[in-house]
Amino acid sequence: MCQLLALSCAEPTDVSFSLTGFAARGGLTDHHVDGWGVAFYEDRACRVFVDEKPAYRSPVAEFLKSYPIKSRNVVAHIRKATQGGARVENCHPFMRELRGQQWVFAHNGDLQPLGDANEPEHGPYAPVGTTDSEAAFCFIMNRLYAHFAAQAEMHADVDDIDAVFEIIEQATRTLNPYGIFNFVLSNGTAQFAYCSTRLSYVIRHWPFSSARLVDGDLSVDFAERGTPADRTAVIATTPLTDEVWTACEPGDLLMFRSGALLRRAHVPVPDAVLATSKYALSELSAVPA
Amino acid sequence: MCQLLALSCAEPTDVSFSLTGFAARGGLTDHHVDGWGVAFYEDRACRVFVDEKPAYRSPVAEFLKSYPIKSRNVVAHIRKATQGGARVENCHPFMRELRGQQWVFAHNGDLQPLGDANEPEHGPYAPVGTTDSEAAFCFIMNRLYAHFAAQAEMHADVDDIDAVFEIIEQATRTLNPYGIFNFVLSNGTAQFAYCSTRLSYVIRHWPFSSARLVDGDLSVDFAERGTPADRTAVIATTPLTDEVWTACEPGDLLMFRSGALLRRAHVPVPDAVLATSKYALSELSAVPA
Repeated sequence: MCQLLALSCAEPTDVSFSLTGFAARGGLTDHHVDGWGVAFYEDRACRVFVDEKPAYRSPVAEFLKSYPIKSRNVVAHIRKATQGGARVENCHPFMRELRGQQWVFAHNGDLQPLGDANEPEHGPYAPVGTTDSEAAFCFIMNRLYAHFAAQAEMHADVDDIDAVFEIIEQATRTLNPYGIFNFVLSNGTAQFAYCSTRLSYVIRHWPFSSARLVDGDLSVDFAERGTPADRTAVIATTPLTDEVWTACEPGDLLMFRSGALLRRAHVPVPDAVLATSKYALSELSAVPA
Repeated sequence: MCQLLALSCAEPTDVSFSLTGFAARGGLTDHHVDGWGVAFYEDRACRVFVDEKPAYRSPVAEFLKSYPIKSRNVVAHIRKATQGGARVENCHPFMRELRGQQWVFAHNGDLQPLGDANEPEHGPYAPVGTTDSEAAFCFIMNRLYAHFAAQAEMHADVDDIDAVFEIIEQATRTLNPYGIFNFVLSNGTAQFAYCSTRLSYVIRHWPFSSARLVDGDLSVDFAERGTPADRTAVIATTPLTDEVWTACEPGDLLMFRSGALLRRAHVPVPDAVLATSKYALSELSAVPA
């Protein structure tokens, strides 16, 4: 299993605070040791840094600590391989362009093979690596492509995030029986997050209080630098700070934008998946007190 | 105008040698100051590092110097903006996935708007930024997609690099009247390079001799580390070393693989473009003696 982290911010935010705690989980305080990756949006551009080395001793992670990037939307992932070797092409987040937007995806879980559901004949997106996760991402992207290509003459627009939400909801319903499917997906404006078994979030807003990292000894006082316009939603597999986090229910599909929770749907998790997840959940380390 | 660099290597090669001289051109020995980027293939994976800052004072370039990556295929670019602001999404190389392969593209030149030749209705690939270069890349990718999608039942394969070469040749013929179009394009196995006005290459093979960087005071003796199995083709806008480089003729479309020149075609450059290029060529700084 893996660790997911996503941020949705009203203002461009220096994300080094949340990544410091997250990176320590890549082998130091946790056992997620088969690579990691982070995607930062800077307006329309998206930079992806991945490494097949554990995050806590990755030179790319070290470089990122000293080179803070301000971003409104971030997706990060630390990988414990369940399928696919510790290779660069198997590191999340994965990225694809659709209608002039970069889309990124990271997954926590373990899916059965999708079979012929994701052949190239079904759309333009195909996996580069060998993970279940990238196959599921391509499945979702092919569904989005099919929708917007079919609607081209009706001026359907990928900026219609409600339409995007509904296609992701349908795709999640289709993929759900294949296994554990916690994910975060962003197009640079919205963050879509699904809780199959485990996902939490916290929304930070003005006036900010201090927050202590769960995985490190770093403490940052948000009150020192926040303004009333700032608002940040942090979504993670397990809480990263000693703030009060909201634990999602299995089946929650959420949409965040500019640090606010905008929409929620329920996509039931099949009983068979919940049954297997009892084993999988026990594999996740406990949150440090 | 911009500076292009591509490497096609028989064996995974530490590319820091060629990048050192190339990075110095980003504002130090030359005037290409609107960003830079480099794409490294590691088997099927492709890592792209871009920065909108000049290469000679980019922290990402500094990091890459201390973190050598071994690669068989590299595409790099230093940007002097002709169209599109100095923004991350306008930095080359651009990357797209097609049929499970990552494809990267970098361009030196200046194209007129492609008009409606590149609307999303014509294929899945659309520009994220505002450059003529990314629009041209998406045009080529949409042509490749259309070919391989139509041939799906005939088991056409993107690994058929001769078919890929011919589609790139046709696309180049279509795009050529729009302006100056020097480019390098790779799918991780082959390098396709087109000389619209200026492009050179050198093939290094065993026994290696020493090569002196044109832009720096670093000298590396390839004889110390080469083996008979090593072979590297270096393709660049202007020669990077004091080796004997081959200057391409305007119209040359070349295909390299594993450090060898495998195929050549001639796609004539329209007279009107060659006439405008006299001005453009004078903008390129002379090669230091």
